[in-house]
Amino acid sequence: MVEFTRVQEDDLRRLCEEVFLGMGLTREDALITTDVLLAADLRGIDSHGVARLSFYYDGLKSGLMKARAETQVISETPTTALIDAGGGMGAPVSYRAMQKAIQKAQDLGLGMVTVRNSNHYGIAGYYAMMALDAGCIGMSTTNSAVFVVPTYGRDARLGTNPIAVAAPAGEERPYVLDMATSVVPFGKLENYSRLGKSIPLGWATDEQGLPTTDPVGLVKTMRGGSRLGGISPLGGHSEEQGGHKGYGLAVLVDVLSAVLPGALYANAVYPTTDEGKPKPSGIGHFFSAIRVDAFRPLDEFKASMDDLQRRLKTAPKAEGQERIYIHGEKEFEETERRKRDGIPLNPKVVADLTRVAGELGIAVKL
Amino acid sequence: MVEFTRVQEDDLRRLCEEVFLGMGLTREDALITTDVLLAADLRGIDSHGVARLSFYYDGLKSGLMKARAETQVISETPTTALIDAGGGMGAPVSYRAMQKAIQKAQDLGLGMVTVRNSNHYGIAGYYAMMALDAGCIGMSTTNSAVFVVPTYGRDARLGTNPIAVAAPAGEERPYVLDMATSVVPFGKLENYSRLGKSIPLGWATDEQGLPTTDPVGLVKTMRGGSRLGGISPLGGHSEEQGGHKGYGLAVLVDVLSAVLPGALYANAVYPTTDEGKPKPSGIGHFFSAIRVDAFRPLDEFKASMDDLQRRLKTAPKAEGQERIYIHGEKEFEETERRKRDGIPLNPKVVADLTRVAGELGIAVKL
Repeated sequence: MVEFTRVQEDDLRRLCEEVFLGMGLTREDALITTDVLLAADLRGIDSHGVARLSFYYDGLKSGLMKARAETQVISETPTTALIDAGGGMGAPVSYRAMQKAIQKAQDLGLGMVTVRNSNHYGIAGYYAMMALDAGCIGMSTTNSAVFVVPTYGRDARLGTNPIAVAAPAGEERPYVLDMATSVVPFGKLENYSRLGKSIPLGWATDEQGLPTTDPVGLVKTMRGGSRLGGISPLGGHSEEQGGHKGYGLAVLVDVLSAVLPGALYANAVYPTTDEGKPKPSGIGHFFSAIRVDAFRPLDEFKASMDDLQRRLKTAPKAEGQERIYIHGEKEFEETERRKRDGIPLNPKVVADLTRVAGELGIAVKL
Repeated sequence: MVEFTRVQEDDLRRLCEEVFLGMGLTREDALITTDVLLAADLRGIDSHGVARLSFYYDGLKSGLMKARAETQVISETPTTALIDAGGGMGAPVSYRAMQKAIQKAQDLGLGMVTVRNSNHYGIAGYYAMMALDAGCIGMSTTNSAVFVVPTYGRDARLGTNPIAVAAPAGEERPYVLDMATSVVPFGKLENYSRLGKSIPLGWATDEQGLPTTDPVGLVKTMRGGSRLGGISPLGGHSEEQGGHKGYGLAVLVDVLSAVLPGALYANAVYPTTDEGKPKPSGIGHFFSAIRVDAFRPLDEFKASMDDLQRRLKTAPKAEGQERIYIHGEKEFEETERRKRDGIPLNPKVVADLTRVAGELGIAVKL
């Protein structure tokens, strides 16, 4: 039985800020990066919250991620921009890129900004949701480390490549889709592997490209960078259940987030030197905003969003089921709970945070 | 053994044009609608080609679709537009809406046009592909007849809601994703039902919301409009294999294609009178174009698209598999075959076409 430690949001926030300041980020960048991490923790997306702090810390320490990178606008039009992140942290440049997309949408109806030469940016949903208060539909995608096998392939060639879209509602909560384009994220295989449990058939294929229920060997080879076997695209490993569609969505994310800005794509991301040492990830991101009232009055749109949601939520339930959810709903409810009761951290995360804080001489009580 | 009749593209094209002219469409609208249907037939998407001619014919005859509708631009900005299709045919208004989106992208980098009060528009991929020659990434979505069950629901509440995206390449063929957001389209259930075959578990759920292998009862209730049971979203009926993601994508298509333009959405589409008589479908569409060179030079983008495709196609194959496809590749190859060998029509389609031609007094040899 794993003992979780519950930590209040503000305490975690302070710790993250101090760590990022300690690693040389500007105050503003430290606040942004912390806010993106905490948003994941509050929403219950534990894999992308402070559990990643040591990953960022190690990246900054080794120089793979730059604490103070020079970002550069490579090209810009009234509706679009391409930003080179200069190998810096993913969150700050992404926050500003989405702000820019929203500003362009305010001015001209639509805004789209892409980023290259960046790093892991946290949860895609954070950036999509930034559009909500501006009366916009927000969207973000990013490519990512190589874990996903193309349909009828044997080795991983694509990332779990998330897509996030957020749309405002009126009395109901906003619609927030934030999904990997694979059946499951890598973290889920890791959890099963750690617990010695079999994974359901359909999640992953082995080094022959055949469905497997064994996560252990898979996690080992994938972590080792050999990329033999991997996670199946949404819809599974073959065309029978539509796996080619999930594969197509993963490619789409590579096109928008990486080919469009000129970032690294497919299995070219997270390259290594000839000696096998890691080089900067080279990944890219995509951000867009659509101003709703360029099409129709925002209050009418919101009323329709409410009605759409209610038509789904009040529909008859399948046998044994009690609830139909709207995307984002679980996460909004979890945020309320965690703001009240604290954020549960597993012992491994507590140990990681303690190590990082210790190395930086930050006093921490968890 | 079903005998297929092979018909040359030009003969089918002439027949469709004459039918649409006979039903009162302008010459230009007849040509556009025909081109959209033939594109489906050539690409091998038989369910959306001339197999639908009698559906359009019946719609026009009954007045549910107007042959000469008055379309109206409801709102317009330099980057966006909202068009009311006036209850006309889906294809002509969609063709012009996508042209408008492309023109806006030529002028300002991005263009987005939504349409309401429309009808079935054929294959989504047709409109996305219109952007290719303009050096743009094209996208289109549409909502559609209610066949898809939300995760943990019992009844259908959403359409198979396709998403299409096309991106230009250099020496390789363009990337063309054109996918229903459900595991399979309704036509596939119909095929299995007709042949008396079981469907694979995962495609659909019955009137208790539980997975079923029996398509017969399902097709009957769904055709009858009672919408008990239905097709599962991409990822299946539960969260285990990611069905909530396909469900989320289906909702996204409703947001973009229907809520944004103020069209009917969810299970409000294809309404009926109190006496159960069909009223106009009321569906909507979404079109967008992104001019690539607003971000980076088109030739560089195309070279990266080629490289991305080759990294996937040349990857090691799963045991028993010989080929990894890029989206659109199968359809481009099928188009070449069918342009050469003719388009195979099954007897039911031949009978439908003969009936329609007969009623309009059009001489036809199939």
